[in-house]
Amino acid sequence: MSVTAAPGFVAAGGACGIKATGAPDLAVIATADAHPVTAAGVFTTNLVAAAPVQISRAHLHDGRAAGIVLNSGNANAATGESGRSVARHMCELTADAIGCASSDVLVCSTGLIGIPLPTAPLDTGIAKVAADRGATREHGLAAATAIMTTDTKPKEATATAALRGGVTVTIGGMAKGAAMLSPAMATMLCAITTDAVVSLPTLQEALHDAVAVSFDNLVVDGCRSTNDTVLVLANGAAQNASVERPADTDDFYALRDALAAVCCSLAEQMARDAEGATKFARIEVRGARSRHDATLAARTIAHSQLVQCSLYGCDPYWGRVLSECGASGAFFDPEQVDIAYNGITVAREGVACAHDADALAQSMQQRDIEIVVDLRCGTGTASVLTTDLTHAYVDENMGTS
Amino acid sequence: MSVTAAPGFVAAGGACGIKATGAPDLAVIATADAHPVTAAGVFTTNLVAAAPVQISRAHLHDGRAAGIVLNSGNANAATGESGRSVARHMCELTADAIGCASSDVLVCSTGLIGIPLPTAPLDTGIAKVAADRGATREHGLAAATAIMTTDTKPKEATATAALRGGVTVTIGGMAKGAAMLSPAMATMLCAITTDAVVSLPTLQEALHDAVAVSFDNLVVDGCRSTNDTVLVLANGAAQNASVERPADTDDFYALRDALAAVCCSLAEQMARDAEGATKFARIEVRGARSRHDATLAARTIAHSQLVQCSLYGCDPYWGRVLSECGASGAFFDPEQVDIAYNGITVAREGVACAHDADALAQSMQQRDIEIVVDLRCGTGTASVLTTDLTHAYVDENMGTS
Repeated sequence: MSVTAAPGFVAAGGACGIKATGAPDLAVIATADAHPVTAAGVFTTNLVAAAPVQISRAHLHDGRAAGIVLNSGNANAATGESGRSVARHMCELTADAIGCASSDVLVCSTGLIGIPLPTAPLDTGIAKVAADRGATREHGLAAATAIMTTDTKPKEATATAALRGGVTVTIGGMAKGAAMLSPAMATMLCAITTDAVVSLPTLQEALHDAVAVSFDNLVVDGCRSTNDTVLVLANGAAQNASVERPADTDDFYALRDALAAVCCSLAEQMARDAEGATKFARIEVRGARSRHDATLAARTIAHSQLVQCSLYGCDPYWGRVLSECGASGAFFDPEQVDIAYNGITVAREGVACAHDADALAQSMQQRDIEIVVDLRCGTGTASVLTTDLTHAYVDENMGTS
Repeated sequence: MSVTAAPGFVAAGGACGIKATGAPDLAVIATADAHPVTAAGVFTTNLVAAAPVQISRAHLHDGRAAGIVLNSGNANAATGESGRSVARHMCELTADAIGCASSDVLVCSTGLIGIPLPTAPLDTGIAKVAADRGATREHGLAAATAIMTTDTKPKEATATAALRGGVTVTIGGMAKGAAMLSPAMATMLCAITTDAVVSLPTLQEALHDAVAVSFDNLVVDGCRSTNDTVLVLANGAAQNASVERPADTDDFYALRDALAAVCCSLAEQMARDAEGATKFARIEVRGARSRHDATLAARTIAHSQLVQCSLYGCDPYWGRVLSECGASGAFFDPEQVDIAYNGITVAREGVACAHDADALAQSMQQRDIEIVVDLRCGTGTASVLTTDLTHAYVDENMGTS
C-alpha cells in the first residue's frame, strides 16, 4: 500500500504514449471527492527548475491541492515558456478529469531534459488514466509503477502515527529515483498522502524535517536534478484534533516521525535500486565536533568516486575514506580517527591496525556494507546512504537512447 | 627537458624496491653545487596531510632548499609519527648523498594511503639513485619517470621568460597525476626548477597564481588527495636583476606567466593521461556575473559523473550541462543560456535549438571535446579541464592490487 493507504485518496497509473516503449508513464493521485486539502511540498534547489516544478510551486501557493499528475519519460525541463504551457495544460486536463480547479492540481515530470513534452499523448491519456482511479492497493501500485524511469521496481511505503484521543493516522508514499541522487535533492519524485488533520505550516515543517533525515542523506552520484519534488496531501479524514505547532509537540513529533519513516523507507529503496549498483552502503560518521561536521564528512565520503569504486571491488581501502574526511571541510585530528568496515576496525588513531583480514574480506562480499568513522573529537553524528560506482552505472549513463 | 632545463640543477631517477614490480620509484632533484636556493611550495588543502607534506612544510619554513626526494609506490599517508620519521629519514639519506643539511631537503611521496613505507629500500636506494644524478635531458626524464604511478607517460614541460636587461630565464617542471584530480589540488606531485633570481615572497606569489590557473582548473574525479605538492626551486644562475614585487611588475608577469605555462602544460598532460579516460574536455563558462560564478559552474559541470558518462558515450546531452550549472550555486537566468559542443550551438536561451546533428555526432567522436556555456548575464569566464568517466576508470580503482 502506498498513496492509497490513507482513507479518502484514489490513484491510477497507466500508459499514455510518452514512452515509445508503451510502458506505463502517467500517474494521477487525487482526493476521493476531488475537494482540495492541505498540501505541502519541497522542491529542487537547482536554479534550473523544470516547468512542472515552476507550475507546482505556483499552484501550491495557497497550501491546498486536490490532485497530482505525474509523468515519466520526459522531464519537461529546459523547455521554456512552451514547457510551462504543457505543464499547465496537464493540470487542466487532470482537473477536468477529476472535477476540480486546475490550480488545485500539482504536476511532476521525470525523464530526459531539454526535449519538448508532446501534448498529443496527454490530451487523450490523462482522462483515460484518471477514469480508472481507485482506492485499492493495486491502484496505488499502478501509480508507483507509472513514475518509474530506470528504476527496476516501484517504491512504496506506509507508516502510522498514534495521536491524542486514541486516533491513528496513516501516511502512504510512493517515489521514483535511480540516479542523479544527491542531498537537496535527487532526480526523484515523491508523493505522499495522509488522513491526518494538520495545519499547513505544521505539515510543511514536518515535511522539511522528514526530507532532511531521508532524501537529504542519500548520495548516489551527487547530481541534483531539475525536477526533484516531494509532495504531501493531508485530507483530514482521520478527524484527529488538528496538529498545530508549537502547541501540539507530542502529536507533531509522532506525525513527523511517521512521515520521516515513510521518506526513509523510500530513500533506502532508492539506494537499493540505484542505477547499476551492486552495493548498498551506510556511511556513519560519529564523534564529530558538530552534526554539521559529521554530515559534511559523511556526504563527502559517500560522494567519492574512489570510495564508490573500492566498494564495487569489495576493497576495504580505508585510506580513501580518511582522505575524503580530510577534504570535507570537517575539523578533526587525523591521528585520532578510527575506521571500521562491517564492525571490523581497520584503522585506529589514524593508522592501520591489526584485524582479521579474512573475516573482513568475506564480509565485504555482502551487498550491504557499513562504514563507521569515529572522529573522536565531539558528539556530532550523521548517517548517509550510498552505493558503489559500477560498469553498469557507466553503461546506463553513456547515452540517452 | 624538464627539471634539468634550467642551468645549475641535476636530477636522477631509478628503482629502489618500493614497487614490487621493480619499476622506477625514486627521484632526486638537487642544485648542482648542493647549496640551498630560494624555494616555494603549494600543498594539499586536505586536513589529512601525508607525512612528507608535513615534513616538507616544516623544511620550507626558511624558504630555502637544496634538493627534493620523491618516491612513488607508497604515499606514506595515514602513517602517524612513524611515517614522519620515515619522511625525515628520507631527507637525511638524501642530504648525506648530495652533501647538504637534511632540513634543506624536501620530500614527496605518492601511492597507496595507510601502508607503512618500508625503510630498507630507501637505506640503500637513495644513495645509489642520487649518485647517478646529472644535468642532461635523460636525467630529467629518469626523474619524471620514477614518480609515475598509474600514469602511462612521464610529464615534463619547460618555458622561458624574457626579463629586464635582456636576460632570459628558464623554467622546467615535471609532474605525476592520473586520478584523484580535483581543484585545490589533485593526487599530484610537481617539481619545478628555474635559474631566475627572485625574492621568496615573489616566487611564492607567482607559484600561487600559476597553480590557480592550471592545477586548480583540472577536475578528474573531484577527489583531493593527502599528498598533493607543487614545489619550485630558484637558484639565481641567470643572474638577472632580482624580481621583487611590487616593484618589478613587468618581470613578475613574465616570470609568473612562464611558470603558469609550465603548470598549464603539465595539467593538460595529466588530463590527457587520466585514469581510463578516452576524452579530453575543456569546459568553458562565459558570460557569468563574476569569475567566481563562472568557476563554480565550470567545475560543477566538469565534476559531474553524468556529464562525464555522456562524454564517454559521445552524447552531447546538454540538459545535464545546464542542470549542473543550476546546481552549482552560480546565479543566472536559465532561459538565457546558450550551450555549444565543439562550436555547434545545441541550446539557445535555455531550450533546444536546431543544429546540424550529423556534424555534431561526428565531432563528438573526437578525443578532444569543447563545451562552451554562455550564461549571458555578465563578463565572468572560467575554463576547466576534465575527462570522461569510463569502464577503465572503474577498473583501475576497484582494487588496490
